[in-house]
Amino acid sequence: MSFDRLIKKIYETQNPTVAGLDPKLDYVPASIKNACFEKYGKTLEGAAAALLEFNKALIDSLCDIVPAVKPQAAYYEMYGWQGVKALSDTISYAKEKGMFVITDGKRNDIGTTMEAYAAAHLGSTEVAGELIDAFGADALTVNGYLGSDGIKPLEKICAERDKGIFVLVKTSNPSSGELQDLRLENGARVYEQMGRMCESWGGSLMGEYGYSAVGAVVGATYPEQLGEMREKAPHTFFLVPGYGAQGGGAEDAKFAFDGNGLGAVINSSRGIMCAWKKQGLTEEDFAAAARTEALRMKEDILSTIGEIKL
Amino acid sequence: MSFDRLIKKIYETQNPTVAGLDPKLDYVPASIKNACFEKYGKTLEGAAAALLEFNKALIDSLCDIVPAVKPQAAYYEMYGWQGVKALSDTISYAKEKGMFVITDGKRNDIGTTMEAYAAAHLGSTEVAGELIDAFGADALTVNGYLGSDGIKPLEKICAERDKGIFVLVKTSNPSSGELQDLRLENGARVYEQMGRMCESWGGSLMGEYGYSAVGAVVGATYPEQLGEMREKAPHTFFLVPGYGAQGGGAEDAKFAFDGNGLGAVINSSRGIMCAWKKQGLTEEDFAAAARTEALRMKEDILSTIGEIKL
Repeated sequence: MSFDRLIKKIYETQNPTVAGLDPKLDYVPASIKNACFEKYGKTLEGAAAALLEFNKALIDSLCDIVPAVKPQAAYYEMYGWQGVKALSDTISYAKEKGMFVITDGKRNDIGTTMEAYAAAHLGSTEVAGELIDAFGADALTVNGYLGSDGIKPLEKICAERDKGIFVLVKTSNPSSGELQDLRLENGARVYEQMGRMCESWGGSLMGEYGYSAVGAVVGATYPEQLGEMREKAPHTFFLVPGYGAQGGGAEDAKFAFDGNGLGAVINSSRGIMCAWKKQGLTEEDFAAAARTEALRMKEDILSTIGEIKL
Repeated sequence: MSFDRLIKKIYETQNPTVAGLDPKLDYVPASIKNACFEKYGKTLEGAAAALLEFNKALIDSLCDIVPAVKPQAAYYEMYGWQGVKALSDTISYAKEKGMFVITDGKRNDIGTTMEAYAAAHLGSTEVAGELIDAFGADALTVNGYLGSDGIKPLEKICAERDKGIFVLVKTSNPSSGELQDLRLENGARVYEQMGRMCESWGGSLMGEYGYSAVGAVVGATYPEQLGEMREKAPHTFFLVPGYGAQGGGAEDAKFAFDGNGLGAVINSSRGIMCAWKKQGLTEEDFAAAARTEALRMKEDILSTIGEIKL
């Protein structure tokens, strides 16, 4: 229950970051793509095989220094069911290598439909009496626009299977304020109200480090709101996008953490996957470059928050 | 562009309804399940094959009297990539049979990630210079919590490929009001604000019947708000869940329509898929029972809105 498993990994690696696996085919070196196209043709299957090879090399290069990966479902779905198979295989591989896996699917629905998403991504599916894990991630991002009916169906699986969710609260994009920043009659802004709901939903799913299984997505691109929410949602663990390519830095991200350096995990996707470009290397060096960038990012963040303590 | 293709089909069939394809394995007759388990084992592959057979029989039974189907992504994802392949095959089959396909995925993200979802579900994916349709639905449900950055990436595909989206505005579930009904400082409720945003997003994607390519999900379980939104969002085509199993009737759903009987499509999922139960038939009769129920539902709705005119 809760994000304790993630928190322990963050402590062990002294690294509060997550590597986003949003693999576009353009990011994959020609050598990998050509081998896959030769084997499977210039097809969705060939593309999906290339993404999987790319991801495996990144995971191999990062698994001892980065606690978690976050595959973004959209980049797999665009390659059809073959891409979705690559997502499934990526999750399995990262877990084999000991990483905590957050599927970034921003899923949302109600009742039995949300239970189906919960079973799909965090739990298991019954087939003729057998229980089978369909995707088997450790956490899932979700959208809370539908209210409790969209979140409650996840609670049972979070409790029974030791899984977590991240609810969108204040997202990192320029237009996030169009709805999220509007002020309600009760004085709170929409994102603040969503943060309150996270605190409430997480109440019965508390872990031993003071954080519940109901986390929140709060962007590094809005450091003021990040600090505000850290204060107002003290039991809610944050997934923080917006570091690096989207413009946020360690000085912005630091507001996500509590006094022990806990309470958040900072995501970098393109910054890590495409690190070879910034390092003046060739695309064939993508995995080593990703490791160098992950270590730089870790030092960057630790330099502002200090040692992580349990 | 816009929902004109759907509107024409609704006019031709004189039937403003959509059949939800949310196939749980429990709904599938034993004869289909056993045949699939025999062929593929009691596996995700076997389950997915059973769902596809079930869907095909429903589509065969409905395609000349119901204009559209709405597969709910969650019920396929719970059977892993094998289930997602069944979703893909279901979409292809329904399109072959001339039906308009709405993928109910409630997808949401920003920028290039939302473009990836748009390519996945409505557009096409480039693989080494070839363009391949990954899922190829006609419309997709989306969640607008992230603002314009989550909707704008869909506009291009809607315009170029003649596709549409339905944004969650006022959902049919009991807790939808927790966030959606809160009143903003500007006097509007959150769902109303979302409806305004739909009108704005759809402005450049208008069709010939007065409705844009940016539709909205508004539940039949809140008839007052349904009528309010019909008035306040006159160019926004509605996808209306909540009829039947969720408690809404034709007297509730009628508020979704304009004076010509246009402006909305009413969904029924369980009511159609499990119609044999209410009709005192056996599970083997599910397809014929679904047709009987679809015709009853059509008559039920037409009796309150009259003939549909273009």
